[in-house]
Amino acid sequence: MAPSPIKFGILGCAGIARKVSRAIMLSPNSTLHAVGSRSIEKAAKFAKENGFPESARVYGSYDAVLDDPEVDAVYVPLPTSLHAEWAIRAARAGKHILLEKPVALNVEELDRILDECESNGVQIMDGTMWMHHPRTAKMKGFLSDPSLFGELKSVHSSFTFRGSKDFLVNDIRVKPELDGFGALGDTGWYCIRSILWAADFELPKSVLALPTTILNSGGVILACTASLHWQDGKSATFHCSFLVNMTMDSTAIGTNGTLHSNDFVVPLDENKASFYTSQKSGFFEPGSKPNEHIVTTELPQETLMVSEFSRLVGCIKSDGAQPDKMWPILSRKTQLVLDAVKVSIDRGHQIVEVAA
Amino acid sequence: MAPSPIKFGILGCAGIARKVSRAIMLSPNSTLHAVGSRSIEKAAKFAKENGFPESARVYGSYDAVLDDPEVDAVYVPLPTSLHAEWAIRAARAGKHILLEKPVALNVEELDRILDECESNGVQIMDGTMWMHHPRTAKMKGFLSDPSLFGELKSVHSSFTFRGSKDFLVNDIRVKPELDGFGALGDTGWYCIRSILWAADFELPKSVLALPTTILNSGGVILACTASLHWQDGKSATFHCSFLVNMTMDSTAIGTNGTLHSNDFVVPLDENKASFYTSQKSGFFEPGSKPNEHIVTTELPQETLMVSEFSRLVGCIKSDGAQPDKMWPILSRKTQLVLDAVKVSIDRGHQIVEVAA
Repeated sequence: MAPSPIKFGILGCAGIARKVSRAIMLSPNSTLHAVGSRSIEKAAKFAKENGFPESARVYGSYDAVLDDPEVDAVYVPLPTSLHAEWAIRAARAGKHILLEKPVALNVEELDRILDECESNGVQIMDGTMWMHHPRTAKMKGFLSDPSLFGELKSVHSSFTFRGSKDFLVNDIRVKPELDGFGALGDTGWYCIRSILWAADFELPKSVLALPTTILNSGGVILACTASLHWQDGKSATFHCSFLVNMTMDSTAIGTNGTLHSNDFVVPLDENKASFYTSQKSGFFEPGSKPNEHIVTTELPQETLMVSEFSRLVGCIKSDGAQPDKMWPILSRKTQLVLDAVKVSIDRGHQIVEVAA
Repeated sequence: MAPSPIKFGILGCAGIARKVSRAIMLSPNSTLHAVGSRSIEKAAKFAKENGFPESARVYGSYDAVLDDPEVDAVYVPLPTSLHAEWAIRAARAGKHILLEKPVALNVEELDRILDECESNGVQIMDGTMWMHHPRTAKMKGFLSDPSLFGELKSVHSSFTFRGSKDFLVNDIRVKPELDGFGALGDTGWYCIRSILWAADFELPKSVLALPTTILNSGGVILACTASLHWQDGKSATFHCSFLVNMTMDSTAIGTNGTLHSNDFVVPLDENKASFYTSQKSGFFEPGSKPNEHIVTTELPQETLMVSEFSRLVGCIKSDGAQPDKMWPILSRKTQLVLDAVKVSIDRGHQIVEVAA
């Protein structure tokens, strides 16, 4: 008998929850069971607008979702400042947690969340969707081949979009009391993750925010650029912004090859994603022109993320498996670098060591 | 009657002189008249191997080229440390000067060259070939359109190639006594130029070399990354290296659009060059996918450079025109930024103001 699908409860009705709700419905091993909001009307409206099944429950509080014994897992798209409180309460209620990024206001807060998850035997995974696209594994194959790519030396990653006037005034991500990181936590999170991913998640020894950070009147980061430095001489730069046209570029340069993607965060086509490689290229030599590689997927990356999370939860629930340790480790390393960049900005763009 | 072609003398037999010799032959308004080397045998071999006309003269010194009254213009591909001496001597001999980059060891030296050019009424232009490709003008058209591109906010440029073992030991560009800048002067020059070009040659107020510079045992830069910062909040980063696979990427991000080229320095196809634009792009919105623009040219960019230089020289020679002022201004601005980045490296990666 196939295991029953993982029943999700959604905490809050953030914009991103629409996309993930669809993913939970599309994923074969999960189902939408409940949504909770501070207002039950809002929850009901959200459930209706997003095609929740008739059987789904709507609650007028987040607590009610956690109190529902049928809920296996929660998806937490709340403002970052509320992550620690609700992730910890979810863990204590024995709910597995799919947590939006940035996962916490700082690594100390994240460690409290992770401790609770471990104590309560629940799975946690952050919402970095592109990690689950099959393109990512294909790109890793290229990076891991010494003859094709060689040794990684440099990465540049850029994720920017232009927030509307309304976004720049009213969005959760520009409010100092709701989100401490702004563009750094929202788009910079993906840049940092892509750099760490290319570096096999080896932490840099230090980071430096460049003296070009743009803050809003509340001190929230609207745009910044930073560099990461490793002991062995590897380096990386990234640029994140709410103020300019959309870019989602990532380029990793090795001694033998180059990997480039121009939509690494969200492929511009849901079912088909490209990346570009070149190897041992010189001027006018064969191989100079980048090769395009196309990777198809039946399910969009956010659905694959939900499927993988649900698979892990299913193993715990049905087979008594232990929670997977890799995903929280990747969240924590990303948060460590994020924190260090924020400290560098707060200290007037000084070099900051990355805590291990 | 069509004006007679501009007669070029080449000072030295550097590798790049092969490419420019071919360009002088291909350009309809120029001709190869002479080549001088410290050894007449080397000059003769160079002339033969590069298809110089039968009538071309070979000389056993650079002086002899300058003494030849028929020489209109010289191409100077000598090591950077020799530029000031030979460019000044050429100017005093009334020869127009096509000068390889980096143009000088510092802006003070360049100013001495430019003063001599001005005093002697000779044209000077540096060897930044891509400036003359018709793609460059097309890209500028995109950047200059407020509705398509908007306001420039950020540029990232990367020009890297992997020098062979022999290159890293023996090339002029890694010898401290011959070239003070290494990868910064060689590939970084193009990055800096592309950034200034995108910024309409507005100088940044400051630069910062990131703490990731790699020097050889003689103190020559093998790889570095730097950022440029403007008064209005614009910023740019660039990465140059002799140690990794080839990249020639440049991305300019504006409030409304993005411009990208993956071979901005030397198009991978001599007669056809691409660039990519996107405008007002969002997630899954029409316009998200970059548009490829293809620009064809009958003559390769180095030939177009020689043609433009020769056209200017022809106007001076035949019509009594004054030397064009734009090209030396662009050389000087590029050198100013180059100097500031070098100072930042020498000062242990401190922020350095750019002298105006």
